[in-house]
Amino acid sequence: MSDIKDLQKKVVAFRDERDWKQFHNPKDSAISLALEAAEVLEHFQWKSPEEMQEHVVKNKVDVSEELADVLYWILLMCNDLDIDISEAFLLKLKKNAKKYPVEKAKGNHKKYTEL
Amino acid sequence: MSDIKDLQKKVVAFRDERDWKQFHNPKDSAISLALEAAEVLEHFQWKSPEEMQEHVVKNKVDVSEELADVLYWILLMCNDLDIDISEAFLLKLKKNAKKYPVEKAKGNHKKYTEL
Amino acid sequence: MSDIKDLQKKVVAFRDERDWKQFHNPKDSAISLALEAAEVLEHFQWKSPEEMQEHVVKNKVDVSEELADVLYWILLMCNDLDIDISEAFLLKLKKNAKKYPVEKAKGNHKKYTEL
Amino acid sequence: MSDIKDLQKKVVAFRDERDWKQFHNPKDSAISLALEAAEVLEHFQWKSPEEMQEHVVKNKVDVSEELADVLYWILLMCNDLDIDISEAFLLKLKKNAKKYPVEKAKGNHKKYTEL
Repeated sequence: MSDIKDLQKKVVAFRDERDWKQFHNPKDSAISLALEAAEVLEHFQWKSPEEMQEHVVKNKVDVSEELADVLYWILLMCNDLDIDISEAFLLKLKKNAKKYPVEKAKGNHKKYTEL
Repeated sequence: MSDIKDLQKKVVAFRDERDWKQFHNPKDSAISLALEAAEVLEHFQWKSPEEMQEHVVKNKVDVSEELADVLYWILLMCNDLDIDISEAFLLKLKKNAKKYPVEKAKGNHKKYTEL
Repeated sequence: MSDIKDLQKKVVAFRDERDWKQFHNPKDSAISLALEAAEVLEHFQWKSPEEMQEHVVKNKVDVSEELADVLYWILLMCNDLDIDISEAFLLKLKKNAKKYPVEKAKGNHKKYTEL
Repeated sequence: MSDIKDLQKKVVAFRDERDWKQFHNPKDSAISLALEAAEVLEHFQWKSPEEMQEHVVKNKVDVSEELADVLYWILLMCNDLDIDISEAFLLKLKKNAKKYPVEKAKGNHKKYTEL
């Protein structure tokens, strides 16, 4: 299963079985999103490129779980805010493609305001 | 298009057309993930439940774009770290279902260590 | 002891006794700063105003330690970047006072761009 | 002026003149703390050690202001939660000194659980 709508249905069902929607609001959900992203970041803190590579090999399940936790909150928030995340994602990618046209951005990591 | 693998292919193609992989490493990608999550959170700061609802109605495109940006980094990181995010997500959901069994967790927002 | 320069000397001495300066760079120090701030935030997640008050009473030492950890990184970063944080703080407060003049901002929580 | 109590009095006076205490609660204050820390981090994202050094030279006032903003929220939160931050800081430093004894931690950046 890899359709984002199916994954979203799963997480909404998980929550609704536990009757947790009553606790969820955008502010606290967004705090969760930020805290889970911080847990991803924690894995790479203080590490050199070589140490990161070694760390990921040894801790792949842990890192995967932290990334899954971030996705969990994206899918719940999008459900609650009535946002179609696939559509939003494709639209944002189109917008980015205009901000960073291939001919200017190729091999160049400047911010679009400095291109 | 809403299959997560198709979305991921799109973002990897976007990056590769710009030859940006050379700049990407897990630490800086995870920083981006955390900073984009902070931008989602910024939308709800200082707002009461009523103000949040009004804010989302008025700023739905903006909020959608910030959430899309978080998804962007999840998909790129999972590609670079060779993580199957759909699989990781479904496994984590199963693990959470064990940590929070319906009969104990229903209507109860305590952490699993306190259930 | 409450002079910020004395506190800063203490933390620099703590680091130098352990010969840790070799590991410190602005990016990883700023990651630490952000992760410690996330730990402060974690204390208040999902809590109502009443639950927050109760939580702080019961966990005052823990919350204090998290806030101390944030200060630790501010003081080390300012040392390493040769920033006089007291001076920077007083200058920023003056700048904020201009952005939010009392007569406009009193009892009004709008962002300065909307005042 | 560099006594932390004097800086704290300044920021509390700044807030009280604007009658903003009514809007402040630990959750939103901690969100502000985390968002300001994210703004510090943003300065160093994607940068090599050489680029960081150059960036700091060119943007010292900006970086100083972001660090001052983090301190602003520490001082306000400690005021509101009745925490003596200097005392908390010195106690935490003592605790860290026990967790990381010089003879074990010298030149060694492992987490205390792995020393």
